[in-house]
Amino acid sequence: DKTKKKPVEEKVDFYREEPKRSSRLKVLSQKPFNAESPKELSAENLITPSELHFVRNHMPVPKIDPKSFKLSIMNDNNGKNIELSLEDLETKFESITIPVTIQCSGNKRKYMNEQNPVQGLQWDANAISTALWTGVRLRDVLIHCGFDLNDPRIRHVIFEGLDKDPSGSVYAASIPIEKVKDDNGEVLLAYKMNNQPIPLDNGYPLRALVPGIIGARSVKWLGKIILSEEESQSFWQLNDYKVLPPSVKNLKEADFKKLRAIQESPITSAICQPAEGNVVKRENGKFTAKGYAFSGGGNDVLNVLVSIDNGKNWKQAALHKFDSPLYKSWAWVLWECELDIPQDQDQIEVVCTATDSNQNTQPESISSIWNARGLLNNAWHKVKVKIE
Amino acid sequence: DKTKKKPVEEKVDFYREEPKRSSRLKVLSQKPFNAESPKELSAENLITPSELHFVRNHMPVPKIDPKSFKLSIMNDNNGKNIELSLEDLETKFESITIPVTIQCSGNKRKYMNEQNPVQGLQWDANAISTALWTGVRLRDVLIHCGFDLNDPRIRHVIFEGLDKDPSGSVYAASIPIEKVKDDNGEVLLAYKMNNQPIPLDNGYPLRALVPGIIGARSVKWLGKIILSEEESQSFWQLNDYKVLPPSVKNLKEADFKKLRAIQESPITSAICQPAEGNVVKRENGKFTAKGYAFSGGGNDVLNVLVSIDNGKNWKQAALHKFDSPLYKSWAWVLWECELDIPQDQDQIEVVCTATDSNQNTQPESISSIWNARGLLNNAWHKVKVKIE
Ligand SMILES: [Mo]
Ligand SMILES: [Mo]
Repeated sequence: DKTKKKPVEEKVDFYREEPKRSSRLKVLSQKPFNAESPKELSAENLITPSELHFVRNHMPVPKIDPKSFKLSIMNDNNGKNIELSLEDLETKFESITIPVTIQCSGNKRKYMNEQNPVQGLQWDANAISTALWTGVRLRDVLIHCGFDLNDPRIRHVIFEGLDKDPSGSVYAASIPIEKVKDDNGEVLLAYKMNNQPIPLDNGYPLRALVPGIIGARSVKWLGKIILSEEESQSFWQLNDYKVLPPSVKNLKEADFKKLRAIQESPITSAICQPAEGNVVKRENGKFTAKGYAFSGGGNDVLNVLVSIDNGKNWKQAALHKFDSPLYKSWAWVLWECELDIPQDQDQIEVVCTATDSNQNTQPESISSIWNARGLLNNAWHKVKVKIE
Repeated sequence: DKTKKKPVEEKVDFYREEPKRSSRLKVLSQKPFNAESPKELSAENLITPSELHFVRNHMPVPKIDPKSFKLSIMNDNNGKNIELSLEDLETKFESITIPVTIQCSGNKRKYMNEQNPVQGLQWDANAISTALWTGVRLRDVLIHCGFDLNDPRIRHVIFEGLDKDPSGSVYAASIPIEKVKDDNGEVLLAYKMNNQPIPLDNGYPLRALVPGIIGARSVKWLGKIILSEEESQSFWQLNDYKVLPPSVKNLKEADFKKLRAIQESPITSAICQPAEGNVVKRENGKFTAKGYAFSGGGNDVLNVLVSIDNGKNWKQAALHKFDSPLYKSWAWVLWECELDIPQDQDQIEVVCTATDSNQNTQPESISSIWNARGLLNNAWHKVKVKIE
C-alpha cells in the first residue's frame, strides 16, 4: 500500500549529481572531486586529453543550462551592470585559441609535507595539465560593454563561480586589473577546451582562463565578474592561497592579511617517467627520463637539467614545446634526457631542475620555500629508480 | 736646437682622456674602467649618487659634443633612416622619470669563481646601482618617426654605442622588439640621471635604458638604433652574455650559437652590512644586517629571508621600496633584519635569499647555475662575521 510507505529520512548527498569521470584519473578526494592527471601522459602529450585533465573542485559541480545562462558583469564603483548570453560571447567578439597550462598551486605538496607537515590535499606532481583553450579576451568584452578600464577605482577583477557550498556561498577569486589590461595578458572568457565544449568538471559552460597565474584564479562555472577597488573577499583569496613565511609552522599563527595573494607561479619541473620505484634494466646501459617544466607569468622555459648524482653533474634535456610569442609562453614544455646507468649502483636517484626566460631556477631543497599551506613547491624533483 | 730634437716615439694611450672618478668606487680594472659601488651605500640609499654608480665600460669613454650630436635610427629592412638631435628628443616627446636598477650580469661572479674558475672581472656583490633616469619612450619616438612596429621583419632593436675599440668597432647589443612595443616595457632614450646630465662614465649624453634587463643591453653613449630582423651581430650579443650549461667547463668548448642572449635577470639579493670579516659586539646581544634584493623583468620583491644557521631557520627582513605599478618594478628594494647573536659561537655566517612576485626564489648553491662565463650568480649570498 503506497500511502502507508513511510518516506525514507535521508541526509541529502550534496554531491549526488557529479559527472562521470575517467577511471584513469588519480583521485585524491571524491567530495569535492580532486584528481591528478595520469603521470605517464605528462611525459608524452603536450596537450592533455580533456577527460584526463587534472580536476581541482572546491564544491559540487553545478548544473547550468547553457540556453538560459547569462554572465553578469558589474562595476562595483558605480553599479553599472550588464548581462551577456553565451551566444553574445561566442558571436560578438574575436575568439582566440591558445595552449594554456593550468597548475594547482598545491602541485607537489606531498613532498613539502614529507619535510614537515603542511595542510592540504597531498598532490604529487601531476596537478597540472595543458589544453587548447578557446575564448574571447576579457579586455575586449569590458571595453565593448563600455566599462572604463582607466577608472582608478577599478583595481581588481573578481570572478564568481556558480558552484556553491551548502550555505549558498560561491567560489570566488580575483586578479589585478593590470593583468586584464596588459596587451600580453590574454585573460580569456573560455567556452571551449580542446575544441569541444568545456567538460563539466572543468567549468562548463564558461570559465575564466587566466594564463600564467595559479589555477585558483581561473574560476570555473563563471557566473559573475565584478570590477572592484578591493580584492575578492573570499576565503580563498584572503586566507588561503598565500605563501606564509617558513617561520610560521602552524596555520593558527598565520597573519594572512599581511601577505599578497598568489598570482603568477615560479619555474618548476618534474620527472614523470620513470616513476618512483620503477626498474630500469642494467643490460640496456641507458634509460630515458621524461617530464615537464613550466613557468608562470608568460615566461618561457629555456633549459632543463638532469642529474643522477644529486647535482654534481648535469645533462641538458631535449625540449618539446609550443611555438609561442615572447612574453606569452602560457604552456609547459616536455623534456626528455637519455642517461647512462652507473656500473656500481643498484639504485639511482634522478633529479631535474629548469631555467626560465628570466633566468630563474628552482631551489635545491624545500628549506627556504616551506610554507604551512604547502603551496608552490618548486624544489628539485627527485625520483628513485631500481637497477636490475 | 729644436730641429734636431728627435720626436718621442710613444705608444698612444688609448685611454688618455678618461673622466675623473670618485675615489670611493671600488676599482676592478682601470683600462677599460670597471668599478663597483661602495658596499655600505647599497645598504642605505635607495638611490645611488651618480658619481658612485657602478661603472662597467668595455672600451675608452668617448668624447661627444652634445651640440652636434645626432642619434640615427634606421630600419634595416627598407633603409628608412632618420636623425634626431638631443633637443629633438628633449622637446618633441613626453619625458618620464623612473627609478631603475642596472645590474651587470657578472655581479657576484667572484663567488662563482671560488667554486670553480670562470672567465671575467671578479665582481663582488655591488656591480649594481639604482638611479632616477629621465628620458623619452623609444616606442613613442619610433612611432612618431613613422617606423611601422608591426612590420614582421622587425624582430630586434640594435643599439650601437659611440665607444670604439682600437680597430674602430663599436660596442653594440640588441633587445627583442616585443620589449619595446610592450605597454609595460618602458624602454627609454635617457638623457638625465638623478636629474642631471648623465655622467661621462654612464653614457653622456644619451643612453639606451632598458629596465628589467641586464646592463649589457642598456647601451651607453648611444649613437645609432637599427630595427632589424637579426639580433646584433656583436661579440657581446652572440658570444659573450649567454648562460652556458654547467657541463661546459671551458669557453673553448662553448657552442654559443645554440644559446639565447640573456635579457631579463633573475631574483637576487645580497648582504651589504656587515661586510665579510666585520666584528659584531657580543654585549649588544643583537646586530642588524642590511642589503638589497632585485628581480629583473619588472617583477617586485615580495620577501627577503635571513638566516644565521645556513637556512634551517629564517627571519623575515623589513623592506624599503619604491611604490611602483604592478609589472613595472624596475628598481631594487633595500632590506634590514635584526638578528640575535648566538651565545655559543665566535663566528656566524649570515645568509639571505629573496622571493619575487612570480614567487621565484634563489638557488641555495651554485651547483646548478655555475657557468663558464660566471654570469647571473644568484645563489644565496653569505657573509662571515666575527663575534667579540
Ligand atoms: Mo589550486
Ligand atoms: Mo654586464
